[in-house]
Amino acid sequence: MPELSSFQYNIVYNLMSLTVAGMGAAALFFFLSPGVDRKFKPALVVSGIVVSIACYHYVRILGSFEGSYASSGGGVYTATGKPFNDFYRYADWLITVPLLMVELVAVLALAKDESRKLLTRLAVAAALMIALGYPGEAAIGTGNDTVVWVWFVASMLPFLYIMATLFGTLTRATQTQPENVRSLLSLARLVVIVTWSFYPIAYVIGALGASSGTGRTAIQVGYTLADLTAKAGFGLVIYAIARAKSTGTEATVGQPRTA
Amino acid sequence: MPELSSFQYNIVYNLMSLTVAGMGAAALFFFLSPGVDRKFKPALVVSGIVVSIACYHYVRILGSFEGSYASSGGGVYTATGKPFNDFYRYADWLITVPLLMVELVAVLALAKDESRKLLTRLAVAAALMIALGYPGEAAIGTGNDTVVWVWFVASMLPFLYIMATLFGTLTRATQTQPENVRSLLSLARLVVIVTWSFYPIAYVIGALGASSGTGRTAIQVGYTLADLTAKAGFGLVIYAIARAKSTGTEATVGQPRTA
Repeated sequence: MPELSSFQYNIVYNLMSLTVAGMGAAALFFFLSPGVDRKFKPALVVSGIVVSIACYHYVRILGSFEGSYASSGGGVYTATGKPFNDFYRYADWLITVPLLMVELVAVLALAKDESRKLLTRLAVAAALMIALGYPGEAAIGTGNDTVVWVWFVASMLPFLYIMATLFGTLTRATQTQPENVRSLLSLARLVVIVTWSFYPIAYVIGALGASSGTGRTAIQVGYTLADLTAKAGFGLVIYAIARAKSTGTEATVGQPRTA
Repeated sequence: MPELSSFQYNIVYNLMSLTVAGMGAAALFFFLSPGVDRKFKPALVVSGIVVSIACYHYVRILGSFEGSYASSGGGVYTATGKPFNDFYRYADWLITVPLLMVELVAVLALAKDESRKLLTRLAVAAALMIALGYPGEAAIGTGNDTVVWVWFVASMLPFLYIMATLFGTLTRATQTQPENVRSLLSLARLVVIVTWSFYPIAYVIGALGASSGTGRTAIQVGYTLADLTAKAGFGLVIYAIARAKSTGTEATVGQPRTA
């Protein structure tokens, strides 16, 4: 692993620590989810679980990063020889990405049959995407460029399938929702597409600059920011949708509540 | 303990870490158990406790594994001399296996008298099974093969008794349940039988290959996958049964819910 300047080391280290706090805080908020109807609690519970898992993994990731570099004086950090464990991120994604799909589909509250089919397809594609990406990620920095790019391309196929499916579903769902929810669903669509794009971009930058401190820093910062927005940020949008629908149900339909 | 390749070490290490996250996530989910009627909450609370205990033990198991091996360069991990503590698994099973029985019997909601008798028999058999298995497990790798196999056979007797009892009870219970629960109970029966079989298989493979890195890896991977499915996976089946029974109760009353 290339050496890092003190500045680069601190950016990565501090961002990871901030992420532990951010994911933990988000977990508490989603579990308590004030002002949300019972009906939407499952989506918020899943959001809370996603950021709890991420919080655990960032504790591990931070520890692994700390162990893999040591200050060698003069504002430079050099590799200790103890490898940074990339797998924590992939283990995290393997559990959380299918749950993010559950979260999204739960808050859309599609008809039951449609939900199940959609979820199965998305969950299988997500597991494939992550499993296919890992061999490439593990090869970054080993000099084996063919492996890095073949697996990247393989992983991008389910990635693009998921994006297209989500885009289609969210666009269709938008049309049948009440007015006040419509703009929030558009926001959810935007958040999914923008934050998810961070992952392949971080991978490419990291792979191209694997031998430089800047490349190492960029990939860690990229993945961490992507995780923060795709999990905690996305959860907040889900919360906003659930909140808006909670108020909406009461205001417009005036149905007796079973909560 | 035999040396491990970097690949073998990482498989065991990463699977254990993933299990910490998976058990923790499952605990949160079971404790919150969205959409489940009050009546079935006890079964879900017990499920949550089981995976919480497992989460704690996997933190310890991971730490013990990490301490028992060190990278000696060239992609090889050698034993540090600090022994890997097998007892964490047995301590975990000693508490969680009787609770898994409670979980199952609770969700079946058998008549009270029947439940109590069944539970007592199953809990005693489970404690015996684990207590008899440990002396054999502790002897794996010491070269004392008689001890390894005598205790294995002793432990298999209560194991087979439990399997036969559960199989009979679950099969009988299936017949008196509503339609939508029946297939889930069959699934529960399948999960119990398949995942529980993993334990003796992992023991045998581990005992036969105790002097090789492959054998060491196989026993750890086997036990870990078995724990994940027998605790978190089984809990999900229990959740599905409770959820189906909850909806079922309400549907007959005439209140179609869309949660």
